[in-house]
Amino acid sequence: MSSRPERAQLIRGVAEAARQAARIVAKTSGAARSAAIAAIADAIDGARAEILAANAQDLATARDAGLSPAMQDRLRLDDARVAGLSRAVREVAAAPELVGRVERSETRPNGLEIQRVRIPLGVIAMIYEARPNVTTDAASLCLKAGNACILRGGREATESNRALLRAVQAGLVAGGLPAEAVQLVPLTDREAIAELVKLDELIDLCIPRGGEGLIRYVAEHARVPVIKHYKGVCHIYVHADADLDQALRIVENAKVQRPGVCNALETLLVDRAAAPAFVPRLVAALGGRVELRGDEATRALGGDAVRPADEADWYAEYLDLILAVRVVDGLDAAIAHIERYGSSHTESILTRDAATAERFLREVDSSTVMVNASTRFADGGELGLGAEIGISTTRLHAYGPMGAEGLTTTKFVVRGTGQIRT
Amino acid sequence: MSSRPERAQLIRGVAEAARQAARIVAKTSGAARSAAIAAIADAIDGARAEILAANAQDLATARDAGLSPAMQDRLRLDDARVAGLSRAVREVAAAPELVGRVERSETRPNGLEIQRVRIPLGVIAMIYEARPNVTTDAASLCLKAGNACILRGGREATESNRALLRAVQAGLVAGGLPAEAVQLVPLTDREAIAELVKLDELIDLCIPRGGEGLIRYVAEHARVPVIKHYKGVCHIYVHADADLDQALRIVENAKVQRPGVCNALETLLVDRAAAPAFVPRLVAALGGRVELRGDEATRALGGDAVRPADEADWYAEYLDLILAVRVVDGLDAAIAHIERYGSSHTESILTRDAATAERFLREVDSSTVMVNASTRFADGGELGLGAEIGISTTRLHAYGPMGAEGLTTTKFVVRGTGQIRT
Repeated sequence: MSSRPERAQLIRGVAEAARQAARIVAKTSGAARSAAIAAIADAIDGARAEILAANAQDLATARDAGLSPAMQDRLRLDDARVAGLSRAVREVAAAPELVGRVERSETRPNGLEIQRVRIPLGVIAMIYEARPNVTTDAASLCLKAGNACILRGGREATESNRALLRAVQAGLVAGGLPAEAVQLVPLTDREAIAELVKLDELIDLCIPRGGEGLIRYVAEHARVPVIKHYKGVCHIYVHADADLDQALRIVENAKVQRPGVCNALETLLVDRAAAPAFVPRLVAALGGRVELRGDEATRALGGDAVRPADEADWYAEYLDLILAVRVVDGLDAAIAHIERYGSSHTESILTRDAATAERFLREVDSSTVMVNASTRFADGGELGLGAEIGISTTRLHAYGPMGAEGLTTTKFVVRGTGQIRT
Repeated sequence: MSSRPERAQLIRGVAEAARQAARIVAKTSGAARSAAIAAIADAIDGARAEILAANAQDLATARDAGLSPAMQDRLRLDDARVAGLSRAVREVAAAPELVGRVERSETRPNGLEIQRVRIPLGVIAMIYEARPNVTTDAASLCLKAGNACILRGGREATESNRALLRAVQAGLVAGGLPAEAVQLVPLTDREAIAELVKLDELIDLCIPRGGEGLIRYVAEHARVPVIKHYKGVCHIYVHADADLDQALRIVENAKVQRPGVCNALETLLVDRAAAPAFVPRLVAALGGRVELRGDEATRALGGDAVRPADEADWYAEYLDLILAVRVVDGLDAAIAHIERYGSSHTESILTRDAATAERFLREVDSSTVMVNASTRFADGGELGLGAEIGISTTRLHAYGPMGAEGLTTTKFVVRGTGQIRT
C-alpha cells in the first residue's frame, strides 16, 4: 500500500498514539487496569463467532498457500482455544498488582529515605509470527504492567488478529482506557518492522518472538532496546550417578510430552559410564516414537535404531519427535558441549550426586538450569511467574521466562527533609 | 592504521579474547576476584609516577590542540587524584559479593525448588570520553560483577589510559586472572566503535557514557544491547507550600556545589503562588554567582539580573553556573514541563504538603524522583549502591544510578526429585 514516506508516517502515527496512551495507562490505578483486562476477556467471549469466522478466513488462505500442517495448527482457533484465550486474560487480570511495589528501601545515615519502586516500561512493541494467542497474551500482560503496546503479528494471522484486536479495544474502552493502549500495525511486510524498531524516542522495548530470520532482521534494524525470544536447544545430561529409571521418565517427558515448544529436549548427553546401561533402554523406550540420531558411541550401543548424527544435529532445534544423542566423557565434557552448541535456554542434569549437581547448576550459564527435572518446566507459570510473555534468550533485563514483571522497571524514590550534599 | 578488514579483525580478536576471559572470571570465586581487584589498586599506587608521566603527555597534546580548560581539568591527574583512583578500586574490592546471591526462592506445589540466582552478564563494552577515572572504575566494577570488559576511552586520554591499563593488567595477573579480562581497544576513531558494537555474539552489553554525538553514534551502529548514560536536565519544582528558606539552600546546593556533573540542577520551576516571595530571594542569593535565565514572569519579579530565556534553555544541560527559571501554574504544569523538556534523570519537588509530594513522586517518570532534597544525591554512593558505573537514562535493566549489580543478571535454578510435566 501507498508510498514509503506515507507508510513510515502511518507507523510513526501508531507509535505516537501509543506513547500518549502509555502516559494515561501509567497513571491509571491497578484496580482500574485489572478491570479493563477483565473486560477484554468478556469481549473475547462475546466476539467468539466473529473471531472464529476471521480465523477460518486465515486458515483458508493458509491452505491455499500450502502452509505446513504444523503452521496451520499453530494458527487454528476453535471454541476451546478461544475460551482458553479469554481464560488466560482473566488470569492476568486476577494476578497481584506490580506497579508501585516497593522492591527495596533503606534509610541513609543523613536521614534520606530511599526506595526502589516498580514502574511501567512505557511502550512495548511485540513482533511475532503465526500464533494468534500472542495477541491477547501480550495485550493483557503489557496492560497489567502499566504499559501500552504495539503488536505486529504474522501475515498468516491477519484476519484473526484484527478480530482479536477489536475485542481487546472494545474491552479497553469498556474499562475506561484509551483504545490506542493496544494497537496492531496494519502492515505485515518486513519493511514495516524496520520502520517500527527505529522509533527509539517513542518505543521503550521491542520483543521479537519467532524464527531466526525474524530475530536477525529485528536485531539488525533496531535502535529500540531488544529482548530476543529465540530458540531453545535444550539439553539433558544423564550423569554416571543418575537414577536410570527416573532418567528415562524425565527424558521421555522432556522430548515427547509437547515436542513443538522451545523448552522441549533436543539433545541428550549420556555419560560414558551410564551409556552401556542407559542407551539400550532409551532405544527400547523411545525408538518407536522418536527418531534417534546418535554419535558413534551411541550407535554402537543402540544399534540400527539410531541413525548417524552429523555436526548440524548438535545445533538443531527440531521442535519435532527427533532427538540427538551423544556420549560424553564426564561433567566437563557435557558443560563444554552445552557451551558450544546450546542456545542458553534450559539444561538439566540427572544425578544423585549433590556435588556434581551443584557444579552443573553453577557453571552452566543458561537462563534455566535444573537438576532431576524435565526441561518442560522452563515456563513462567511452572516457575511461579504467572503468565509469560515468552522466554528471553537475551541476558539483559529479563533472562529466561519473562512475565509481567519483565515488562516493568524500577525508579529511585527519595524522601528528604531538606538534605543538601556537602 | 592499516586496512579496514585488518582493523575489524583486530577488534574481533579483542572481543574473542574477552569472551574467553569472561568464562574464566565467571568461574572464579568472589574472594579471588576481590583479591585481584585489590591487587589492581596496589598496582595503580605502584605505577603512580608512570601514570602521571603518561597523563602529562596527554595534557600537553590537549593544550596544543586547544582543548577547553574544563576538558583539560577532566583529563588531569595528580598525586591526589591517582590516590583517589586506587582508593575507589579498593572500595569496590571490599564491597559485598554479588555473584551467586539468591534473589528469590520458592517451593512449588509439585516440590520443585525454584531460585533466582545472580550471575555475571559476560562481556561489557564501555565507551567513554575524556575522564581517565572511568578506566579503573569500570574495570573494577566489571570484575566485581564477574565480567570481562572492553574499554574504549577517548583519544585525549590515550596515554593515561594505556598506563592505567598496564597497572590493571598487572593487578589481574598478580591476582591469578587473565590479563584479557580487561582490555583497551587500541583504535580511537569512531569507526572502531562501529565495529565493536556489532559483535553481538561476543559482547553482552555496551555502555556509552558521554555527549549526545557519541551516544547517538553508538545507538545507530549497535547490535549489542545498549544502556545509555546520557544527559541530566534535572529540575527542582518549588511548590506553593515549600519552606522557602530550605528551598533556597537546596536550590543553591543543587546548582552550585558541583555544576559540571549530570545530577546538577539545570531548570528551576517556581510555582506562581511562591514566585513573588521566592524569585527576589533567589536573585539576591545566587544572582552574583549564577547566570539566571528566566521566562517573562520570572523577569518581572527578578528584574534585570535575570536574562531572557528562550526555548533552547528549557532543553539545556548547561553543566555550568547557569540556571533556567520558569514560573508554572501548579503541579500539573510542573509535571508537564518536565515530561516535555526533561531527560528522565532526576527531579525534586520542594513542599510541605505530603499529598502533593506523593503525586509528584508517583507521576514523574524520571529514574530518580525526590522530595525536599538536592538533586545532587542522585548518585550510586549516596543512594546506597556503592560505587557506580554511571547513571542510566535507558529504562531497561538498570534505570538511574547503576552499580555493580547493574552489571549482572539472574538465572533460574530448579532443583527437583524426578518431576515430570503432565
